[in-house]
Amino acid sequence: MEGAKGSETVLSELESAIETVVENYNKYSAKENLLRKGGIKKSNFKRMLQSELSHMLTETMKEEAVEKLFQEMDQDGDSLIDFDEYWALIGKIVKLLARNQQ
Amino acid sequence: MEGAKGSETVLSELESAIETVVENYNKYSAKENLLRKGGIKKSNFKRMLQSELSHMLTETMKEEAVEKLFQEMDQDGDSLIDFDEYWALIGKIVKLLARNQQ
Repeated sequence: MEGAKGSETVLSELESAIETVVENYNKYSAKENLLRKGGIKKSNFKRMLQSELSHMLTETMKEEAVEKLFQEMDQDGDSLIDFDEYWALIGKIVKLLARNQQ
Repeated sequence: MEGAKGSETVLSELESAIETVVENYNKYSAKENLLRKGGIKKSNFKRMLQSELSHMLTETMKEEAVEKLFQEMDQDGDSLIDFDEYWALIGKIVKLLARNQQ
């Protein structure tokens, strides 16, 4: 696409935030695998929760949340979390936190 | 919960980003309505796309995306976009952008 690069665009707060969430997916996503399907391994996702969401999630919630979310995900039997699932998981964690704050 | 407030916690990048996306929902969400259901009016969501995602979405994509996304949402016939729908919509926009960048 023309004109899409090289410009020093100042992103809005929301845009920067979205970019950060996407970059975080890329950071934990498996880059090399034979089928080039990509996605985050469940073990990496757990590591991500520990490292990147340590202030948001208490220890108890972390374990509880991970357990619950992974159970819900297990239906597709896939060991890799794709972008859709990743995005949905973050959304669920946010709702979980909101409920706990009320 | 004890010890959860008053601390000057420095959030991780991902946590700050998530907070920003949530704050953006609150910013555009209808605060007063009789049923206290809350959510973003479709007209406000359009305004949000214009104001907050102006760099990410080109004019064409904006119209195209909004049209498509709203059609998909129309199934519940609800005029307010709740947090689940909001989160899912942002996720869809991100995927749409990713596809266009490839």
